[in-house]
Amino acid sequence: MNIYNDYMDVIKEAVDSDTSNYLNKGLGYPSMKRSNEQFKNLYSKISESTIAPSLRTFSTSLGKTVNFNQELGLHPSFQHLKDTNDTEEHYIVSAFIDIKGSTNLFKKFDKETVFLITNAILKAGIHTALIFGGYVHRLQGDGMFVYFGGKSISKNEAVSQALQAVSVYTYFVKNDLKEYLQSKGIENISIRSGIDLGHNNDVLWGNSGIGEISEVTTCSLHTSLASKMQSSAISNGVVVGNYIKEEVINGDEYFTTVSSRTDNENDRYIYRIDDRNFYYTQFDFNWERFLKKQKFIAIDQMGNVVIKIPETNIRPLSIASLKPIADLSKPFYSNEFKIR
Amino acid sequence: MNIYNDYMDVIKEAVDSDTSNYLNKGLGYPSMKRSNEQFKNLYSKISESTIAPSLRTFSTSLGKTVNFNQELGLHPSFQHLKDTNDTEEHYIVSAFIDIKGSTNLFKKFDKETVFLITNAILKAGIHTALIFGGYVHRLQGDGMFVYFGGKSISKNEAVSQALQAVSVYTYFVKNDLKEYLQSKGIENISIRSGIDLGHNNDVLWGNSGIGEISEVTTCSLHTSLASKMQSSAISNGVVVGNYIKEEVINGDEYFTTVSSRTDNENDRYIYRIDDRNFYYTQFDFNWERFLKKQKFIAIDQMGNVVIKIPETNIRPLSIASLKPIADLSKPFYSNEFKIR
Repeated sequence: MNIYNDYMDVIKEAVDSDTSNYLNKGLGYPSMKRSNEQFKNLYSKISESTIAPSLRTFSTSLGKTVNFNQELGLHPSFQHLKDTNDTEEHYIVSAFIDIKGSTNLFKKFDKETVFLITNAILKAGIHTALIFGGYVHRLQGDGMFVYFGGKSISKNEAVSQALQAVSVYTYFVKNDLKEYLQSKGIENISIRSGIDLGHNNDVLWGNSGIGEISEVTTCSLHTSLASKMQSSAISNGVVVGNYIKEEVINGDEYFTTVSSRTDNENDRYIYRIDDRNFYYTQFDFNWERFLKKQKFIAIDQMGNVVIKIPETNIRPLSIASLKPIADLSKPFYSNEFKIR
Repeated sequence: MNIYNDYMDVIKEAVDSDTSNYLNKGLGYPSMKRSNEQFKNLYSKISESTIAPSLRTFSTSLGKTVNFNQELGLHPSFQHLKDTNDTEEHYIVSAFIDIKGSTNLFKKFDKETVFLITNAILKAGIHTALIFGGYVHRLQGDGMFVYFGGKSISKNEAVSQALQAVSVYTYFVKNDLKEYLQSKGIENISIRSGIDLGHNNDVLWGNSGIGEISEVTTCSLHTSLASKMQSSAISNGVVVGNYIKEEVINGDEYFTTVSSRTDNENDRYIYRIDDRNFYYTQFDFNWERFLKKQKFIAIDQMGNVVIKIPETNIRPLSIASLKPIADLSKPFYSNEFKIR
């Protein structure tokens, strides 16, 4: 997906300048030190406070304004709870998104390269979450725990944003990233996500921990279940809870029970409380089908998913964002060029 | 372990005042609202900036001064890297500690009770980490990612502190907490931990993420492996990497290969790079045996592990800390009373 070109460029340059050789007996001991300047250049290429141009074009075309003014563990709608013993009930969508297999990067690359790669992946993920109105609550290595929703967003919109963000990011990891890393001998990089919605009565917001070793977080069955659902997902899969499905029009089109995939009736419910008659179903989310139905997506003649960016929006940025690609002239993106 | 009495008291009072009844059809809908005041009292019982008296007595007896002046994602030795594109190599011990099965709490209790319980468990964990010189890097629900070591601590001491902290906390969860919750019908609460040491050349410290959506963190195979080792651990088990074992005198006494437990040679190495001849062994850590050898531990006539607190240290606190126990007169702690 061409919107991630700038992130992929950092990853490719990191790999190209990797200094490992396979004669070393240990790890993290580059045979020839990468110059510090070279490293810093790559490290800061995607700047601290802006989205990379390739993704910004997309963001602009969606008409989204991105709020960078966020801090981990302090959701803007609930930050007044920090350092208090107050709590509050409010619905939230919890999304756990995790890159699997990245430990394999250490098999081929020195730790500086791994750092640059994982950081670029993480930045792409954070930026994607932000574009779709998410709030990044916690970083977990190269994974993230993102909330969607809050006091100024409807439940329905929050669910839709979560599904869009995860679909776009999963597409990136499953296609662009995995394909490139595979070409460098890194197998089994994938992404798995779990998403669930907790309604007002099911979610308690409060400060958890002590002093500054704390975060404003949710105590909710549905936050816990989102994390569990992530473990239920297949490679490059997304599993969601029933409350998510209920918010989606034509849900049956995109959601199928996990038990129908595993052919094991025990997998139907992610959670059950028999003596309360509570049975909560988990679903595989067909994010590819969902993505293709989004207004911002088109399918090219090769059957690839491409981002529709209106002409008026790409003009001002297209030269700058084409330059690094033209310089490198990687055939990898070739069939996505046409949409620029 | 009596040092956790105050934390257990909060948990017990939370359970005793739980308002769920099993006739409710949904979750998180207490049949009778717990008074807000009652909730806040319990919530703030273990204060924000001090260790609960029962644990403080222990901390004092160890001669440890506890540094509360910490912030998540900002290790004091490496905080100068925040918002820069500098990186630094420095050894670190990474410990992933996770409570498993806590989602089961929602089967019996309302979300306010679950919040109080998980918060008390988390506070006990944070305090334990702090007492043993740990730095809490990240909270993960009721789990934690803790670093041990830094610029003013020797590698050897950092390893010893990590093993002590995890042993004491695992004892608490496996015995006190699990036993009590089981008596309330909550099964399968357990704790699993993974610990590994990365030497200077294997650990890159740097700022990861963007803006305030970032943390100063380590890019290291051995941080990634610590997290993987946690998944290798059995219930109430601890798995460590070979570099940890190498720092421990008489290591063979406390560490056995995971493959000898599983009887599967594939489990011997948590990581291997054949073309670099790198094979990294994972070990089950016999924390119970290790704990019994610690200077601060004694075994009573019943075979229970009890904390040795020198008489001079307990006098000033003993009356205050006995009071809540005497009030409740729970037989649960009876065979630990003798050491007070």
